[in-house]
Amino acid sequence: MKILVIHGPNLQQLGFREPSLYGLETLEELHQRIREEAVRLGVTVEFFQSHVEGELVRAIASAAGRVDGILINPAAYTHTSVALRDALQSVAMPCVEVHLSNVAAREEFRRPGLTTGACVGQVSGFGGDSYLLGLRGLADILRRRSGEAGKKGAEG
Amino acid sequence: MKILVIHGPNLQQLGFREPSLYGLETLEELHQRIREEAVRLGVTVEFFQSHVEGELVRAIASAAGRVDGILINPAAYTHTSVALRDALQSVAMPCVEVHLSNVAAREEFRRPGLTTGACVGQVSGFGGDSYLLGLRGLADILRRRSGEAGKKGAEG
Amino acid sequence: MKILVIHGPNLQQLGFREPSLYGLETLEELHQRIREEAVRLGVTVEFFQSHVEGELVRAIASAAGRVDGILINPAAYTHTSVALRDALQSVAMPCVEVHLSNVAAREEFRRPGLTTGACVGQVSGFGGDSYLLGLRGLADILRRRSGEAGKKGAEG
Amino acid sequence: MKILVIHGPNLQQLGFREPSLYGLETLEELHQRIREEAVRLGVTVEFFQSHVEGELVRAIASAAGRVDGILINPAAYTHTSVALRDALQSVAMPCVEVHLSNVAAREEFRRPGLTTGACVGQVSGFGGDSYLLGLRGLADILRRRSGEAGKKGAEG
Amino acid sequence: MKILVIHGPNLQQLGFREPSLYGLETLEELHQRIREEAVRLGVTVEFFQSHVEGELVRAIASAAGRVDGILINPAAYTHTSVALRDALQSVAMPCVEVHLSNVAAREEFRRPGLTTGACVGQVSGFGGDSYLLGLRGLADILRRRSGEAGKKGAEG
Amino acid sequence: MKILVIHGPNLQQLGFREPSLYGLETLEELHQRIREEAVRLGVTVEFFQSHVEGELVRAIASAAGRVDGILINPAAYTHTSVALRDALQSVAMPCVEVHLSNVAAREEFRRPGLTTGACVGQVSGFGGDSYLLGLRGLADILRRRSGEAGKKGAEG
Amino acid sequence: MKILVIHGPNLQQLGFREPSLYGLETLEELHQRIREEAVRLGVTVEFFQSHVEGELVRAIASAAGRVDGILINPAAYTHTSVALRDALQSVAMPCVEVHLSNVAAREEFRRPGLTTGACVGQVSGFGGDSYLLGLRGLADILRRRSGEAGKKGAEG
Amino acid sequence: MKILVIHGPNLQQLGFREPSLYGLETLEELHQRIREEAVRLGVTVEFFQSHVEGELVRAIASAAGRVDGILINPAAYTHTSVALRDALQSVAMPCVEVHLSNVAAREEFRRPGLTTGACVGQVSGFGGDSYLLGLRGLADILRRRSGEAGKKGAEG
Amino acid sequence: MKILVIHGPNLQQLGFREPSLYGLETLEELHQRIREEAVRLGVTVEFFQSHVEGELVRAIASAAGRVDGILINPAAYTHTSVALRDALQSVAMPCVEVHLSNVAAREEFRRPGLTTGACVGQVSGFGGDSYLLGLRGLADILRRRSGEAGKKGAEG
Amino acid sequence: MKILVIHGPNLQQLGFREPSLYGLETLEELHQRIREEAVRLGVTVEFFQSHVEGELVRAIASAAGRVDGILINPAAYTHTSVALRDALQSVAMPCVEVHLSNVAAREEFRRPGLTTGACVGQVSGFGGDSYLLGLRGLADILRRRSGEAGKKGAEG
Amino acid sequence: MKILVIHGPNLQQLGFREPSLYGLETLEELHQRIREEAVRLGVTVEFFQSHVEGELVRAIASAAGRVDGILINPAAYTHTSVALRDALQSVAMPCVEVHLSNVAAREEFRRPGLTTGACVGQVSGFGGDSYLLGLRGLADILRRRSGEAGKKGAEG
Amino acid sequence: MKILVIHGPNLQQLGFREPSLYGLETLEELHQRIREEAVRLGVTVEFFQSHVEGELVRAIASAAGRVDGILINPAAYTHTSVALRDALQSVAMPCVEVHLSNVAAREEFRRPGLTTGACVGQVSGFGGDSYLLGLRGLADILRRRSGEAGKKGAEG
Repeated sequence: MKILVIHGPNLQQLGFREPSLYGLETLEELHQRIREEAVRLGVTVEFFQSHVEGELVRAIASAAGRVDGILINPAAYTHTSVALRDALQSVAMPCVEVHLSNVAAREEFRRPGLTTGACVGQVSGFGGDSYLLGLRGLADILRRRSGEAGKKGAEG
Repeated sequence: MKILVIHGPNLQQLGFREPSLYGLETLEELHQRIREEAVRLGVTVEFFQSHVEGELVRAIASAAGRVDGILINPAAYTHTSVALRDALQSVAMPCVEVHLSNVAAREEFRRPGLTTGACVGQVSGFGGDSYLLGLRGLADILRRRSGEAGKKGAEG
Repeated sequence: MKILVIHGPNLQQLGFREPSLYGLETLEELHQRIREEAVRLGVTVEFFQSHVEGELVRAIASAAGRVDGILINPAAYTHTSVALRDALQSVAMPCVEVHLSNVAAREEFRRPGLTTGACVGQVSGFGGDSYLLGLRGLADILRRRSGEAGKKGAEG
Repeated sequence: MKILVIHGPNLQQLGFREPSLYGLETLEELHQRIREEAVRLGVTVEFFQSHVEGELVRAIASAAGRVDGILINPAAYTHTSVALRDALQSVAMPCVEVHLSNVAAREEFRRPGLTTGACVGQVSGFGGDSYLLGLRGLADILRRRSGEAGKKGAEG
Repeated sequence: MKILVIHGPNLQQLGFREPSLYGLETLEELHQRIREEAVRLGVTVEFFQSHVEGELVRAIASAAGRVDGILINPAAYTHTSVALRDALQSVAMPCVEVHLSNVAAREEFRRPGLTTGACVGQVSGFGGDSYLLGLRGLADILRRRSGEAGKKGAEG
Repeated sequence: MKILVIHGPNLQQLGFREPSLYGLETLEELHQRIREEAVRLGVTVEFFQSHVEGELVRAIASAAGRVDGILINPAAYTHTSVALRDALQSVAMPCVEVHLSNVAAREEFRRPGLTTGACVGQVSGFGGDSYLLGLRGLADILRRRSGEAGKKGAEG
Repeated sequence: MKILVIHGPNLQQLGFREPSLYGLETLEELHQRIREEAVRLGVTVEFFQSHVEGELVRAIASAAGRVDGILINPAAYTHTSVALRDALQSVAMPCVEVHLSNVAAREEFRRPGLTTGACVGQVSGFGGDSYLLGLRGLADILRRRSGEAGKKGAEG
Repeated sequence: MKILVIHGPNLQQLGFREPSLYGLETLEELHQRIREEAVRLGVTVEFFQSHVEGELVRAIASAAGRVDGILINPAAYTHTSVALRDALQSVAMPCVEVHLSNVAAREEFRRPGLTTGACVGQVSGFGGDSYLLGLRGLADILRRRSGEAGKKGAEG
Repeated sequence: MKILVIHGPNLQQLGFREPSLYGLETLEELHQRIREEAVRLGVTVEFFQSHVEGELVRAIASAAGRVDGILINPAAYTHTSVALRDALQSVAMPCVEVHLSNVAAREEFRRPGLTTGACVGQVSGFGGDSYLLGLRGLADILRRRSGEAGKKGAEG
Repeated sequence: MKILVIHGPNLQQLGFREPSLYGLETLEELHQRIREEAVRLGVTVEFFQSHVEGELVRAIASAAGRVDGILINPAAYTHTSVALRDALQSVAMPCVEVHLSNVAAREEFRRPGLTTGACVGQVSGFGGDSYLLGLRGLADILRRRSGEAGKKGAEG
Repeated sequence: MKILVIHGPNLQQLGFREPSLYGLETLEELHQRIREEAVRLGVTVEFFQSHVEGELVRAIASAAGRVDGILINPAAYTHTSVALRDALQSVAMPCVEVHLSNVAAREEFRRPGLTTGACVGQVSGFGGDSYLLGLRGLADILRRRSGEAGKKGAEG
Repeated sequence: MKILVIHGPNLQQLGFREPSLYGLETLEELHQRIREEAVRLGVTVEFFQSHVEGELVRAIASAAGRVDGILINPAAYTHTSVALRDALQSVAMPCVEVHLSNVAAREEFRRPGLTTGACVGQVSGFGGDSYLLGLRGLADILRRRSGEAGKKGAEG
């Protein structure tokens, strides 16, 4: 079971950018923690980061058939990107959205959740842990679905 | 470490009400799963359910000093209750909000997240698993805080 | 065939409160008229009144399996209660909403009809007669449905 | 006691148009049911249908002095016609609005009830029965008023 | 110099309908007063009334080339009719809008002035006198324009 | 019968400022025309101009008891001044609002007519003639009222 | 295969009205071009024009069973008519909407596309050619559907 | 003269909850100060607190005939409760609204003052003193009314 | 301790203007009552009234260092003046806002409270008594602050 | 005559992504059909696809002087991209917008047509045929313009 | 070349009022810096400050013909004054708007820039330097225009 | 002292694109002028242009530690990009925003200034000179800050 972990714009800067808001952990340290959680959950993970909306669209589109689920932090594009929403909606696999901060407690222009509606679920506000919790939630969904598929296969 | 788990209106009906939307698991079965996860996480949990906005306010207010954190599914009151928001804001402990369904994919009138802004973080869309993931996230926050407090105490 | 008649907040005061707006008939006198109409329609009725949103939710939830339909005047909660809407949506039986006054002719803040969308139909503006008309409409719906069910049973 | 029953645009198609939404009963069959109910209620009815907003205005205006009340289904014009509202407001007799479907459960653009505020009351969501219930409600209003007028005359 | 005077929906009822709002003068009496004012101003007038939006459109369209200016009270259509606005915009002659009552002091839904923006000017709130003042204003505009045209002709 | 003619901000510049929009006539020339019309109407006029919202308020307030009616072009304050609206509302005499241009055909921020709702009527779009028409309309209102008052006096 | 071509309000004036906006071609010349395109496409066309919203509703309703598709330019009613939307929605045949000008580049009040949502597709901004393109698009849809129906018939 | 003092949700926590915002005085200490002020004003007071919207409605309803005026801090329900507004509107005695903090200086969602419009007046921003000032204002209103009633009685 | 009492536009007319809304007391009589209350409270008062927004700004700005607090009724400017808000915000002394009527029960355009957010507290709806209550509230604030300052001085 | 055909984000997936919404034709098959139509129309076409907003901007900018017209499906960027609108507005050649689905019948957030207003015309809802119809419309515009230019040249 | 520098409300207090927001420089010190910059730029400056909207209007109106350009900080009136916008729009000379703080980073009610749209350009956020930069920008515009005028004169 | 000058989408076309709106100066010529001004100001500049939102984000992020300030014209992304705002907010150095045209005088959809709020200040409407003025303002800010830092260092 393989999961693609996607980071949107400005997340390369994690650990350096506004630490009072986003914490001190770097993206590399977070990747390490995600990898360890993946081992615990029995899944493999693969990472992609881009500041470019269209490259995120491409990463999602080309994931079809290659991975089983997507864990995405669309960052700023959560609130402005219909293109990302369309991409997430069109891949035939479960997507989970995560956010470092609690967006509901921030500025008005972060209110619309365009991409959120195209995902199965959302985890926000736990800093880097949002990724770990989201990964766990996504892995459970995939396991349950494959279990059902397995059963159907066995019944067939 | 003790966590109060609060269910808002209409959640008593879990498993019976609109199963296509909310699943087949009953509230009792969900409680069992939460208790097991609590054991794994080394925390104790206590449950409270009410349809009445003011009783939820009272439960939150009287939790102060008795528990270490609150896990709450305010259900419909998420979108309409300033009173619950005030209650969550005024208890000096971390609160985490959970939802069974992905509210961002539902009706327009479920868009405002009045209570969400008064919580540390939010998990939504994973069915009953939203509670398990939220509990885990909350336990981590509490552990980290008490660790820091411990260190401070040791340093003092 | 049994119908639960639910009155929302401030309806206990009927006949005493703003008679120019709501008329002089008391809730007890209205109940009498509803009972007589129920006899004419061959249904039995049961009454519940509460000022408390959550108690109305509970009444609706616990009606499932015990009665065949709900006639409800959510009063002020019509415009503010997502919780009541969720409750009405989740019971698997027809609900009819009634109002004493014509809400479309009143203040702007009475415009949203949150609960109305979760009911089969609505009667408003006929004073106490709104209940009688709503009861008749609901009884007809129930009779038609049970007729169909009966036929289906007979055909089966 | 005479009541003018007015049908707005697209109601000629009743029974043929979107039966899943509006039912299978034709306008002619509905008229028959309304006439029977009128007999039961001791009133006479007269029908008018037009797709043209201005012809509905004319029908209302020319009803003054000729009939005692108006039962109207303004259909789509409910949401867009200030002209119909003005017409209903200016006739000195009670008007009742009816709808086949429950408009509160439909599209956003059906939310404004321009004509509704100029009527005494409203019945919606009971299919053809909305007319029967509205007729009964209107007949009761007329009877009560003429009763009062009668009493006043007797007292005078 | 010929001016077409157009009355929109519900104006046939003038003098009978809500006299506290619109006065006691009938449309016929008003026509007489307009004719007298026309004589004083040295113009001829012609009247058209319809409740039907499309017939008002037709009257405006067919006025092109036949009259020199239009005095119109679009009544309720002022606030809802893009069709009338298009018609007024497309005739190559000055149009003046009049209203019996002061629309700015009435309901919120009478705020948009769709047709007003396609007219040269507007007179409202003077009861039947709004027509007389509007006629005078329009006659002055026409005289000034024809004067200029005359001068141009003389100069050419 | 005395009428106070009030000009709001920027009207001193009339004839010099944006002539394509407001015409070439100066305020002095316009005053001359208003005076001549006043003679024709048998009323006397008095002029006041100020750019200062509060001085316009003062002029209106101190007019009470000294003049019989107010003809006002609040210009830009039409759209922003609650203070002027309050002033117009509180003098116990008829006020008429005039505008040189047709405000309904201009920018969105000129849409609210705060002062308009506190006047009897409005004339707009006829350039300087708006004042003449408004004066005539106001004089007619005053004559009618004093006629009624006279009759009442005679009858008394 | 027969297609009904419907023109909404103000289109009779085509070629005469605001040629800078709508071009110099008259409705008759446009009809000729549409007829020629119809011959090329192997369909027959029939025309209907009305300024009256309700007559357009009637034309659509009575087309059911008589023609195979509708090509409509609702003009101003595009933005204001729920009645036309209901009519288009209820006929069981494909409808295509056309506009001479590009409505998205015009006034704010032309933004809502009430009727557009009830059509299969839309062509706008090509002047009279919008009709030709829309006709071609509609003919293709009809051919494909009848092809499928034919195949189904052959297979049956 | 008796006044019912009502505290809405979360006010039990006064003195403990967010003291930087609401001060250090407890509800009990505030009650003591209110009682002393009541003695000075020659009125008696009675207290009621509830977190439950419907219990506040009941308290108001059952106060009718038992007390002479109501002093209420609806807290969060100020902004969301149509039910409380209806209750305040329907009791035939003066109500005064008080707030500890200056709501106009707080979050956007605290802007609507649903209950405020059903009260005679409002005092906000003086901490616990808001109650004392409101009590004084209410006592003055009651005294003036009873004085008038007294005079009328004496005159009768 | 000195307090500047500021009256905004239209308040000169007090007692004469719309007495049903604002009462019969004149500004002079109100001043007398305020002076008596000031004596009771041991403060001195000074009055300023202007219809001119900018003069109110000047009065506030020049009060700095000369008085200890400001009691202001900004009247209409409450809803429209950012300039007054800036002035109140920039003086380093407590300001209290008062209103004769309960603005929450009046027109929609009186909803925004621009100046209110720059004040410590607000009293509205008690007629002239609003000033007395506001003065008392402001005097208490000043006394408490100077008490604290005094203590700090004594401690220093 | 050369036309640049531009596909926006997520269109690479055509034929694979949500076929119930977008059909089964792949982008390559669509290109083939467009090329054939181009041959019929006597124009040459060139294709460009990108998920990246800025690359679409670059493609439009660099097309200036190289091609004669642009046919673009901005997909999701239709609703969010001011940058694309600016690019389309600034190239001195006609642009036509096409959409596979009828956007007016989809989600609310697809309502704004930012790019549409910078194009000559729009075709939507005909699946892949939207491109063919748009190409034809664009070719006609170009032919007409070059014809006019040719005539002007010949006349010169 | 002469430039009028206008300061709006509350700017007299510069250096004293909220120094954390507006800095410590007084208006006099700023004037000195502006004069020095004017010398460097070869222009002369003249200052005007008023808290009164109408006096600012008058200053702008009377500047016509006397100065060559206007540098204005409308302060709070930027967001509320249509009168100032009209004044700036009507003087036939370039105006530049400056702000001490970055208004885009402040409260929501400072969002509308009514006066900004009537100026050539805007400088904001540089404290007192905004004036120096704006002066330089304005001087360049004037020089360029007079250069063009000069050239035209020389060519003539 | 080094400053990064960033140009957003469509600015490569400067001098070619819509010269009536943006002028005739090319980007290269503007760069030359900026370099000359930089020499005068004693700073060095470096240029970056991209149409791609994400590449602008990357340029800002990678500027941290390498340059002392950023001068940016986000062009169209000013109004739509939360990603750019986040990037500007997170670099720990002053940013200044510039615009060629006066955005406040353009279309409604250019009203939101998402990036502006994350900058120190803004200059707009002076064509290419906006860059020169912004550069000067930014250089002054940097000099002042480094002066303070220097002084602090010297004092230390």
